[in-house]
Amino acid sequence: MKLSMLGSGFIGRFYADSIQGLRSKDQVFSIYSRREESAKKFAEDYNCAHWTIDMEASIAHPEVEVVCIALPNNLHEAAVMLCCKHKKAVITTKPLGRNSAEAKRMLEAVEAAGIFHGYLEDLVYTPKFIKAEKSVREGAVGRVLWAKSRETHPGPHSDWFWDIEQAGGGCILDLGCHCVEISRSYIGKDIKPIEVMCWADTQVKPIDAEDHAIALVKYENGAIGQFEVSWTFRGGLDLRDEVMGTEGTIWINSFLRTGFEMFTTGKGGDYVAEKAESNSGWLFPVGDELNELGYNHMFADMFDAIEKGVAPKETFYDGYIVNAVLDAAYASAKSKLWEPVVLDIWRGKTGVTKDSHLVEFDTDHYLIKEEMTHYGDKKVILKHKTTGKISDRIINGK
Amino acid sequence: MKLSMLGSGFIGRFYADSIQGLRSKDQVFSIYSRREESAKKFAEDYNCAHWTIDMEASIAHPEVEVVCIALPNNLHEAAVMLCCKHKKAVITTKPLGRNSAEAKRMLEAVEAAGIFHGYLEDLVYTPKFIKAEKSVREGAVGRVLWAKSRETHPGPHSDWFWDIEQAGGGCILDLGCHCVEISRSYIGKDIKPIEVMCWADTQVKPIDAEDHAIALVKYENGAIGQFEVSWTFRGGLDLRDEVMGTEGTIWINSFLRTGFEMFTTGKGGDYVAEKAESNSGWLFPVGDELNELGYNHMFADMFDAIEKGVAPKETFYDGYIVNAVLDAAYASAKSKLWEPVVLDIWRGKTGVTKDSHLVEFDTDHYLIKEEMTHYGDKKVILKHKTTGKISDRIINGK
Amino acid sequence: MKLSMLGSGFIGRFYADSIQGLRSKDQVFSIYSRREESAKKFAEDYNCAHWTIDMEASIAHPEVEVVCIALPNNLHEAAVMLCCKHKKAVITTKPLGRNSAEAKRMLEAVEAAGIFHGYLEDLVYTPKFIKAEKSVREGAVGRVLWAKSRETHPGPHSDWFWDIEQAGGGCILDLGCHCVEISRSYIGKDIKPIEVMCWADTQVKPIDAEDHAIALVKYENGAIGQFEVSWTFRGGLDLRDEVMGTEGTIWINSFLRTGFEMFTTGKGGDYVAEKAESNSGWLFPVGDELNELGYNHMFADMFDAIEKGVAPKETFYDGYIVNAVLDAAYASAKSKLWEPVVLDIWRGKTGVTKDSHLVEFDTDHYLIKEEMTHYGDKKVILKHKTTGKISDRIINGK
Amino acid sequence: MKLSMLGSGFIGRFYADSIQGLRSKDQVFSIYSRREESAKKFAEDYNCAHWTIDMEASIAHPEVEVVCIALPNNLHEAAVMLCCKHKKAVITTKPLGRNSAEAKRMLEAVEAAGIFHGYLEDLVYTPKFIKAEKSVREGAVGRVLWAKSRETHPGPHSDWFWDIEQAGGGCILDLGCHCVEISRSYIGKDIKPIEVMCWADTQVKPIDAEDHAIALVKYENGAIGQFEVSWTFRGGLDLRDEVMGTEGTIWINSFLRTGFEMFTTGKGGDYVAEKAESNSGWLFPVGDELNELGYNHMFADMFDAIEKGVAPKETFYDGYIVNAVLDAAYASAKSKLWEPVVLDIWRGKTGVTKDSHLVEFDTDHYLIKEEMTHYGDKKVILKHKTTGKISDRIINGK
Repeated sequence: MKLSMLGSGFIGRFYADSIQGLRSKDQVFSIYSRREESAKKFAEDYNCAHWTIDMEASIAHPEVEVVCIALPNNLHEAAVMLCCKHKKAVITTKPLGRNSAEAKRMLEAVEAAGIFHGYLEDLVYTPKFIKAEKSVREGAVGRVLWAKSRETHPGPHSDWFWDIEQAGGGCILDLGCHCVEISRSYIGKDIKPIEVMCWADTQVKPIDAEDHAIALVKYENGAIGQFEVSWTFRGGLDLRDEVMGTEGTIWINSFLRTGFEMFTTGKGGDYVAEKAESNSGWLFPVGDELNELGYNHMFADMFDAIEKGVAPKETFYDGYIVNAVLDAAYASAKSKLWEPVVLDIWRGKTGVTKDSHLVEFDTDHYLIKEEMTHYGDKKVILKHKTTGKISDRIINGK
Repeated sequence: MKLSMLGSGFIGRFYADSIQGLRSKDQVFSIYSRREESAKKFAEDYNCAHWTIDMEASIAHPEVEVVCIALPNNLHEAAVMLCCKHKKAVITTKPLGRNSAEAKRMLEAVEAAGIFHGYLEDLVYTPKFIKAEKSVREGAVGRVLWAKSRETHPGPHSDWFWDIEQAGGGCILDLGCHCVEISRSYIGKDIKPIEVMCWADTQVKPIDAEDHAIALVKYENGAIGQFEVSWTFRGGLDLRDEVMGTEGTIWINSFLRTGFEMFTTGKGGDYVAEKAESNSGWLFPVGDELNELGYNHMFADMFDAIEKGVAPKETFYDGYIVNAVLDAAYASAKSKLWEPVVLDIWRGKTGVTKDSHLVEFDTDHYLIKEEMTHYGDKKVILKHKTTGKISDRIINGK
Repeated sequence: MKLSMLGSGFIGRFYADSIQGLRSKDQVFSIYSRREESAKKFAEDYNCAHWTIDMEASIAHPEVEVVCIALPNNLHEAAVMLCCKHKKAVITTKPLGRNSAEAKRMLEAVEAAGIFHGYLEDLVYTPKFIKAEKSVREGAVGRVLWAKSRETHPGPHSDWFWDIEQAGGGCILDLGCHCVEISRSYIGKDIKPIEVMCWADTQVKPIDAEDHAIALVKYENGAIGQFEVSWTFRGGLDLRDEVMGTEGTIWINSFLRTGFEMFTTGKGGDYVAEKAESNSGWLFPVGDELNELGYNHMFADMFDAIEKGVAPKETFYDGYIVNAVLDAAYASAKSKLWEPVVLDIWRGKTGVTKDSHLVEFDTDHYLIKEEMTHYGDKKVILKHKTTGKISDRIINGK
Repeated sequence: MKLSMLGSGFIGRFYADSIQGLRSKDQVFSIYSRREESAKKFAEDYNCAHWTIDMEASIAHPEVEVVCIALPNNLHEAAVMLCCKHKKAVITTKPLGRNSAEAKRMLEAVEAAGIFHGYLEDLVYTPKFIKAEKSVREGAVGRVLWAKSRETHPGPHSDWFWDIEQAGGGCILDLGCHCVEISRSYIGKDIKPIEVMCWADTQVKPIDAEDHAIALVKYENGAIGQFEVSWTFRGGLDLRDEVMGTEGTIWINSFLRTGFEMFTTGKGGDYVAEKAESNSGWLFPVGDELNELGYNHMFADMFDAIEKGVAPKETFYDGYIVNAVLDAAYASAKSKLWEPVVLDIWRGKTGVTKDSHLVEFDTDHYLIKEEMTHYGDKKVILKHKTTGKISDRIINGK
């Protein structure tokens, strides 16, 4: 696959490292950057055949098969429109838009143009997530009750993130977009998110946007999604998911505790720890970030889908849903109310209700709980069906 | 110290195990239980000099120095009133009341009676918590921004918990009381809890009370407390706290991951795992529950305080504050609004405002972030004081 | 219980903290130290009724019921002999002697004198160990095949440890004594240790004794004990045990990973981390060292045993066995051979042989392994009883 | 790269999954298997252009650029000789030979033939190992003192492993080969392994080979390698490395604790856990085994090296060194002596001695240890250069 990469910054380089990684047959053919020196440097580092400071030239280049947007949030829409114009397959970094209106316009544009569109939500492509989600679909945790995702760190690298105009928001938009799609994937992408309650504040940084937020997202089937996001966390990058189901639990730690622990006094040489907040003491490196963060499996899904002529796992539609949930989060943070998720476009189930989960014990009772006593007997706690009275009963006394 | 123990159930036995534990000079002198056989059995097991099915007889017994209430929630108030009548020092299991009205009456009664009163919130006495709280007070994590506490398990042992009349509520009251006091202690017990947003639902159990809830508690200084409580968690007892501060992070796991891991095929004998949901596979026992759950340090603080004639770390006042926060949580779960914490009695600071945390960089700029680039340079991200413009600058290029 | 404490150093203070800990009825009545100022300071700090620089005066004091030896290794024997002379119950810090000859003389002396004797091996009294050992006895891991214990840290606090004359050895004697008794307890204290292979070296420190050693201890039933000890470990105190059995596995981490994790930038105040090698970055404190390291349960066992007139779990006999194993380790480190454990005194089983563990599959075959294939079939790997030929067979093909 | 894969079993499939993984440009062109149905099935599953039951036909096929040997140990040598005959690049699964004589013949043959040769030791290619080794080379842990690697599980899948004639040995050969190369890589591949002490036993399985072994490998610079291997471990696949250096520590867990934890009651559906010993309770899946176990980075290194005409990181020479160390381990297990590592071929450093690591304190003293006292003073423990006397000194008393 031959790509145009739009943007030569931190994320563009990360993407290129993955796309051109181990024995890959794909390559970044053309690089567009706003600054000539950045474009040249990138082209040199990644051995790109073409570089330019004219975005449309990169997109329109006849050898380019797919365009990868790795630009600040405020530039996504314009770039997408150019892809539509030139009928090029397009994949876009997260979040899709700064808000659902932008996202909706992009979704409608790519669909009208009939082009391939992929939404680069890498964290639903991490190997751990892929395996966990498969287990959930196979019933390993029963019915999902709650799915939380947390992403916090000490703040982004590039200056534009801190500028609310370019970024469109703070850590909710930057990090919450990951978390929303993770929770939604665990709960079921066909289940409608209904309303959001969000707390957000600027607790530490001298900025206009929020640097810390927590939200609950209610789904139509009664399941709850949760996100915890912050740009003020100390200790590195904290990336964790937790799922509770009626029959099981999932805990995933994607960064700070992955089975690699190192202590160093810092005296032993010129060792420099990456991404850690210090170079000495106990450090917790990640072996292979590109793989652990899902980039490899994400691009494989995207390019395989293009080759097969099918939709990838994550499309602009998903990006749009995520933006709609985040819009509700921002509204809630302001209004302090549960705010509805406004979805002009919804292609999943509707009218789903909470299942009844009364467990029959006998004609008159529901079963609340069964347990072993200290004496080795089985005890059941029951609720009378009509009176509602709670009682317990020893079943097989020895 | 000679005690009257009111209640011979699960928690009463746990308390007695701790009070009469390793080389202790304290003892349960009198045991009261509603059922004669339970009272007798307890007296036998713990070598109590006196047993009775008349609560007042136990409290009033001349040898009894302190009364320990280990009864269902709906019986706390009556027991406290009898302690006031007989001028006996009283310590009560959590929560203090079923609501803040009950709690307030109890607080006012013990203060009017001039008796010693202790609130048995064991989880702010765990050795890990004690050390963590000390570190926080010494500044190890800077200013506390967020303090979360989570307690979830597959549901309580005794039948009365499942009866909303006796219990007064579901997992919010049962488990949230722990979490609220933990968060509050990290944030500062002199900082006023202002308002609460809570989601609660009955997702699994055939009961009237909630079996799963999540809440945010806003404090006057802008810090946020959070609780996650459930009776539907699978995998054992999940007891974790997390604290974020401007200069650090705390993660405490008090039960499922404490450095003791065991795998067993289950074929090796008649081994029975305690408190685990299964007897085979990977199990995570806790070495010494009484100590790890804070009982030992809690009773030591209570009895030492009685001997010294001072107040313990946790009094009925704290129990009252907790009940008031939980009342707001219940109100919020119903109204779907942020509900104010109504505190008729408040003895901490008032009028605390959020500190300004603008970091001066130079005459014209605030500092947003400082970091090392890939090239080893120091980069600063700045905000102009008047224009608000964001920029970055390389400081010491090589 | 009223004690004489011999020694006011690091370990004596640790012991006193435990003995006079939470609501304890025991107390250090008399303190003996070589230096008057140390004795006085200790008496003041621990509220001791009597202090002295005359060891015999402390031992012989009529109020003293039990003598606790917390002296350098080379002074144990003399102190024990004085306890024999004055017929005082005696408990001694580890190791019992600098070698088995010393240990044997002490054992014979206390038995001849008919006095109570306890060996203060705290690490077989940690709450985790107690529960793990109980599980092993109940069959949770089947037959124990291997039991490893590891204790490593950056070197002891007091100067005498570094002096081979006073200490009698290096990290083998200082730390290996713990490990040997832990492994032996898992394997069974009635199973005879037969021979030892040990590697030891002085890799880092400018001392005559070893600062790093690894050894294997073979037991009569074919089980293997292992110790890993060092004074050159970086990162804190590493205290871990691992047990492999035919039906299970045990992993215990007693210090560096016990469920308490803290990150601090170190800027937040004058916070000082204890026992860690740094005051910033990720730190892993232990909640309650006295309890986690077994001191509380150890002294409780000792004093309860004295009161009941029975032997404690660990006696001088155990200390003697440990010294005999360590003697073999030192001999092996020098000779580079497996060296026999010389036990003039042995009170356990003798002539134990390795059990046969052939699992019958059918008349002609033993079963080697049973597993599920990728296709969901059950596969068995078999060995022919007479020909020894290995084969596999699919059992329940679908 | 177009490959011939020799062997269609468990490991051949694992290799093919990696080689033809995400967006790879490499492919298995020809598959050889002893059984026609296996060859056909493999060709179908992996879309191979050519299949055969004639090994030479696969190797000699004109389109085949490189031959990958995934056969039982006893068939490696013959396959290698055919590659030499046909001048095909060859890469071989571990261990290279059943002993160093076989390995040496293979090494000499490929060098005489002038063909590319790679040794498929995947575990020095895991992302965690690659990053850890880099840190060690950069000095993060100072001088390496000890490097342990542990691989234990409940026994291999294929029947030939259990047959000592085909396998050439038991778990030492099967698993120890990984561990030896891991330790050697940490210590330095140019440092000569000198002698080995090994304990091995058949503790559980009804086989002739060993099912459990532990060994120490001494290197010329005084560093110690260690391996712990077993086919009798319960609980899954235990794959851990530990490194101690003068300035740091490394702990790597490659399988059972990688940040993915799941509890399932097993009632929720037809969920089947892979590689775990049970399908319920707490499970610890690995996200992406191919990547975590090093296959992806290993094949990338091999194929990149072929394309660039350079040697890969691991060659037959490394395989030969490993076999020589394992031979010494087998000899030691039998003789109970430290056995020399016999290396007819050695291309690293010779005559390396242990560095002196005396730290100068002042003219008369070496420094043993420096630490902070409880009172906040700095204390140094010193050794007199001539008398050897140990003393301590408070440096900066307040």
